[in-house]
Amino acid sequence: MHVDAARLRADIEANAEFGDIDAEEGHGRTVLCGTEANRQAREYFVERLEDAGLAVEIDAVGNVSGTWTPDSTDENAAPVAFGSHLDSVPEGGIFDGPLGVYAALEGVRAMQEAGVDPERPVVVVSFTEEEGQRFADGLLGSSVSVGVRSVEEALALEDEDGTTLEDALADVGFRGEGLLDANEWDAWYELHIEQDTQLERADVPVGVVTTITGITHCEATILGEANHAGATPMDERTDALAAAAEFVLDVERTANDVVDDSSDSAVGTVGSLNVSPNATNVVPGRVEMGIDVRDVVYESMETIVGAARESLNRLEAERGVDTAFERPFDLEPTPMADRLREAAHSAGSDAGIETIDMHSGAAHDTMHVADVTDAALLFAPSRDGISHNPREWTDWDDCAAAARVLAGAVADAAGGDSNM
Amino acid sequence: MHVDAARLRADIEANAEFGDIDAEEGHGRTVLCGTEANRQAREYFVERLEDAGLAVEIDAVGNVSGTWTPDSTDENAAPVAFGSHLDSVPEGGIFDGPLGVYAALEGVRAMQEAGVDPERPVVVVSFTEEEGQRFADGLLGSSVSVGVRSVEEALALEDEDGTTLEDALADVGFRGEGLLDANEWDAWYELHIEQDTQLERADVPVGVVTTITGITHCEATILGEANHAGATPMDERTDALAAAAEFVLDVERTANDVVDDSSDSAVGTVGSLNVSPNATNVVPGRVEMGIDVRDVVYESMETIVGAARESLNRLEAERGVDTAFERPFDLEPTPMADRLREAAHSAGSDAGIETIDMHSGAAHDTMHVADVTDAALLFAPSRDGISHNPREWTDWDDCAAAARVLAGAVADAAGGDSNM
Repeated sequence: MHVDAARLRADIEANAEFGDIDAEEGHGRTVLCGTEANRQAREYFVERLEDAGLAVEIDAVGNVSGTWTPDSTDENAAPVAFGSHLDSVPEGGIFDGPLGVYAALEGVRAMQEAGVDPERPVVVVSFTEEEGQRFADGLLGSSVSVGVRSVEEALALEDEDGTTLEDALADVGFRGEGLLDANEWDAWYELHIEQDTQLERADVPVGVVTTITGITHCEATILGEANHAGATPMDERTDALAAAAEFVLDVERTANDVVDDSSDSAVGTVGSLNVSPNATNVVPGRVEMGIDVRDVVYESMETIVGAARESLNRLEAERGVDTAFERPFDLEPTPMADRLREAAHSAGSDAGIETIDMHSGAAHDTMHVADVTDAALLFAPSRDGISHNPREWTDWDDCAAAARVLAGAVADAAGGDSNM
Repeated sequence: MHVDAARLRADIEANAEFGDIDAEEGHGRTVLCGTEANRQAREYFVERLEDAGLAVEIDAVGNVSGTWTPDSTDENAAPVAFGSHLDSVPEGGIFDGPLGVYAALEGVRAMQEAGVDPERPVVVVSFTEEEGQRFADGLLGSSVSVGVRSVEEALALEDEDGTTLEDALADVGFRGEGLLDANEWDAWYELHIEQDTQLERADVPVGVVTTITGITHCEATILGEANHAGATPMDERTDALAAAAEFVLDVERTANDVVDDSSDSAVGTVGSLNVSPNATNVVPGRVEMGIDVRDVVYESMETIVGAARESLNRLEAERGVDTAFERPFDLEPTPMADRLREAAHSAGSDAGIETIDMHSGAAHDTMHVADVTDAALLFAPSRDGISHNPREWTDWDDCAAAARVLAGAVADAAGGDSNM
């Protein structure tokens, strides 16, 4: 079976033009769910699915799928699905998501051209808003696909301006019908960029994930008192930003302690911070922060979240601020299916492509899918581990190698002959 | 001479409706220069000047003045001017600026009704963008009026969206001609709210400022590396926000040390902080901060600014971030004119209103005017010292008392009889 590296590259480069930003270095894009850039990316994807002869469906929350059902296929068999997402973070890179979507499509084309005769239908998938930058906190489309969030609940989600997901999808022509139901799948594969340096350091083009890290998102609010920066003496202030600065450092320090003491895969990040009124000459009155906590060991996450809560309690006592803390998003670490991992290693071995086991520090739609069916996650290398950044890069040869392993593994899972 | 408290209150309350915000407590407004709210405030002010029979002029940078030249006046004499500003910070209060503008107008009306015959023309002034929230860093109109900034330079200033001051003023119909030249004035008075608690604690309705605090604004930028919050191990990060958190605390600590060691009026504030990309699941790559430093002793300001620079140097060495530091705005402490301060105390004494000496921790247009002519600054009490906040409040009786002292002092400076 042969993967066409140039065809895969052409699709990823074409997709990179949608939401293109003027980056100083590298190639960046901003493709938030339901925006014009997202419409363009979705429409191009649908065209490419149709070009390959796949039956395209758009579900009620905008998940896009293309199903390949050649004559060899038992239409009643549970399908094998694979894919990823097309949305990005603000000023993100061009591989995070699109590599997995277009490698899946390329996998189908490779199977078609190699005469693979799968017993199960093969489905290429792009999930809605994996990055969680506009409507939800991440993994939106897959959360509906597996049933942890209802269609109605998802469609009613609002962005900061009060626009609902339903209206945003309708605006871009991707408010479809029905549900892409992951519960019906026999197996799921996702190929993604690693976003770390394990593969680069090992000089191996494909990683097979054993466990996806657990992930928690928290929201902390600190209320002080906005006041004139010149006329308010130092000892009469309740400065929300100075308190927030202590909180940021407490989260960082605790994560470092957990790394030193017990689990070197633990991370804790204050990624967003918004100050109000945010004027140079006003003592900050309110700060809102978004905190991201992850590890393959759930206890590490609990330790870091607990320290964040303790930090806020301390700041209330020591600085007189009021605080609030919420934890709207929490997923425990997720192990991958052994049979699918083994199939991926075999596909690599058959094609002469080296593969290694590793864990995933990033959350992926595969976390949700793994709750309802067998699932696996493959990684391609990220140069210097850089991601969510225009300098994100994966060599085209590595993209092709990973796509080849993916195609072989899916062909195997679908009951086709991956060795042709 | 009688000041009409109800008439003054009606003007301030009418002005408070322009840019009105829905505050949980108190009465807030957002009146940035050249916005619709600013147009409404300016037009109402012009109407009120004309109602009082003053000759209205709009200068090239939108400074508004109304000149009273009764028959008693020597038209060639250098005028006495007084006023303040009508713009606000975002979500600011209703007294900061408007009290001084409408107290000046009420002062003219009071002099007219009392039959005061000034030898010098009397000018009521509203300076453009004192708060510095859209185009400049503060004191914009007065900087042009005294000549430290040219009309051309001012008109070319751009807001964040690239709109020039010239276009913004033209949009609201306040791009006038000529220059309101403070160099021609014999004297200047400004009444403003205190924005601190000295008057409240002394239970005195009017303060006479001895020295206005010096003020520096600095801009600090910290460049780290934006990266995936889940896939980037703690020891491979260059987190711009964690570095910024140390900077915020270094500025606060240094200001507290200066207060403890040498000058209890010193303040240092990181008032604004903007994170990029500012997403929960991305390690922050860039942080920009606005720093406000003030004292009546310039050496204190130098100490705090020096510590801010040292903090950035330390963060470069310890955290591997890149940093930049600018100091676009720097005004040394400004003493007020003795003869005008004495006139204010006398006016209070004559009217049976207690006055006390104090310093100003806030910057005011009077800082600029004092560089080119005799100038004085009067304060009315601020409840709990709260300002730049919808809860900003000055009792109407205190507004009237301060307006009465202002009118008496200006009548004296203008060569009229303040004891009528």
